[in-house]
Amino acid sequence: MPFSYSRTVRFKDTDAAGVVYFANVLAMCHEACEESLAASSINLKVFFSNPVVAVPIVHTSVDFLRPMFCGDQVLINLITRQRSGDEFEIGYKILEAVADKVVAKAITRHVCIEPVSRTRKELPTEIIQWLQQWSI
Amino acid sequence: MPFSYSRTVRFKDTDAAGVVYFANVLAMCHEACEESLAASSINLKVFFSNPVVAVPIVHTSVDFLRPMFCGDQVLINLITRQRSGDEFEIGYKILEAVADKVVAKAITRHVCIEPVSRTRKELPTEIIQWLQQWSI
Amino acid sequence: MPFSYSRTVRFKDTDAAGVVYFANVLAMCHEACEESLAASSINLKVFFSNPVVAVPIVHTSVDFLRPMFCGDQVLINLITRQRSGDEFEIGYKILEAVADKVVAKAITRHVCIEPVSRTRKELPTEIIQWLQQWSI
Amino acid sequence: MPFSYSRTVRFKDTDAAGVVYFANVLAMCHEACEESLAASSINLKVFFSNPVVAVPIVHTSVDFLRPMFCGDQVLINLITRQRSGDEFEIGYKILEAVADKVVAKAITRHVCIEPVSRTRKELPTEIIQWLQQWSI
Repeated sequence: MPFSYSRTVRFKDTDAAGVVYFANVLAMCHEACEESLAASSINLKVFFSNPVVAVPIVHTSVDFLRPMFCGDQVLINLITRQRSGDEFEIGYKILEAVADKVVAKAITRHVCIEPVSRTRKELPTEIIQWLQQWSI
Repeated sequence: MPFSYSRTVRFKDTDAAGVVYFANVLAMCHEACEESLAASSINLKVFFSNPVVAVPIVHTSVDFLRPMFCGDQVLINLITRQRSGDEFEIGYKILEAVADKVVAKAITRHVCIEPVSRTRKELPTEIIQWLQQWSI
Repeated sequence: MPFSYSRTVRFKDTDAAGVVYFANVLAMCHEACEESLAASSINLKVFFSNPVVAVPIVHTSVDFLRPMFCGDQVLINLITRQRSGDEFEIGYKILEAVADKVVAKAITRHVCIEPVSRTRKELPTEIIQWLQQWSI
Repeated sequence: MPFSYSRTVRFKDTDAAGVVYFANVLAMCHEACEESLAASSINLKVFFSNPVVAVPIVHTSVDFLRPMFCGDQVLINLITRQRSGDEFEIGYKILEAVADKVVAKAITRHVCIEPVSRTRKELPTEIIQWLQQWSI
């Protein structure tokens, strides 16, 4: 089941072209990811501030289909997919809510590491459960 | 009556010290301002993307009382005050919602201008109504 | 000939994991693009604030190979490539300057549009010259 | 002697009003602070990523005098002042370099703490030397 996250486009997201600055689209996707973790009862403060594992992004890609403007309501649908014992991928579809049009699509690919040594580590149970909850 | 805006602290808001980057506290305050405008039926897209008037910030100050961490729930209470025919001020109090402790206080002072010439202009009716709605 | 842009990693670029926030890598690439435009005598203020044409990004991808830390000196090598009369692509290779190791690779694909109607438009001469200057 | 830091205004610094987003002015000031630390032979990577002490900002204020546009060359003059054994203040004056006009003025007030317990701690020798180097 995909996870859905609703968000208003903020003034800070925009640039002098009057639309959302391209890299901020990825920040919106990451917000959706954080919300999906919280929705799976993962404590964000522990997960991001004092983690046993980290899940840095090793690859990302984005297709920008339509501009987004300050005040736009967007809906981000997120789907997770485990790729191996220490890798997963998240797919994002961003829709402008009023016109119900896809404005961007993105993926982020993550690996699980031990945060200090930065060596690969098996995904912990709570992440695997989160991956299962929001996969198709 | 103050306006209240609830917000989760995002990973993007933080820095390598593990807490919210100081300047991002002002961005959170501006988000609260945007929400208060929307709550007064002001169309954000028109107001920020194609404005008849602009209300740039000419002064700001912030007191940082406690650190904020990724995942923290914060409540931003906002109060508006008209200072003259073309100036107003907004006061913000940011509380960490679980402990109910004030983490920061800020003000932003704005002037009303015509966006192209950047000369001062009287505040329009819809802004005066918004100022009255969220003043004490 | 590739264009080279040197940059110090800033505290603002980092997140609570202690390294550069992933989406900020794209912002660094865009900075390199801006510098390459300036190096080809394109006036950035006119180009980005009052443009005759806009060149929004329609696709991007990034491979993150190594973490970047606050204070790191990075070198961004940029190569341009015209794809058609109204499209071009930029390739970026980011190196940590001391160890001379590649830390990230990225591409951005752009289309040329008329900024108000947002319809496609032929690339102007100054952009074609810039593309030729920094292509292989 | 004040420290001087030169910087080009970037597209990412701007917002849909076509000028620099107000909170990003503080980020520019922090960049100047980082450069002044490096100019005093303080290792930024150690100082910000693995610190013995942290110097969080407890207060800031900014006066915005003129808008800044993408491509503008700005000069940030920075002056330090020790306030007590564990406190200091930095004053910033931002000038648009071509017109040589002040566009903003800011201050940041810092306290020295132990990063884990977040209790106050005396300023270390290297910070006191940095404060002396860039004071009037």
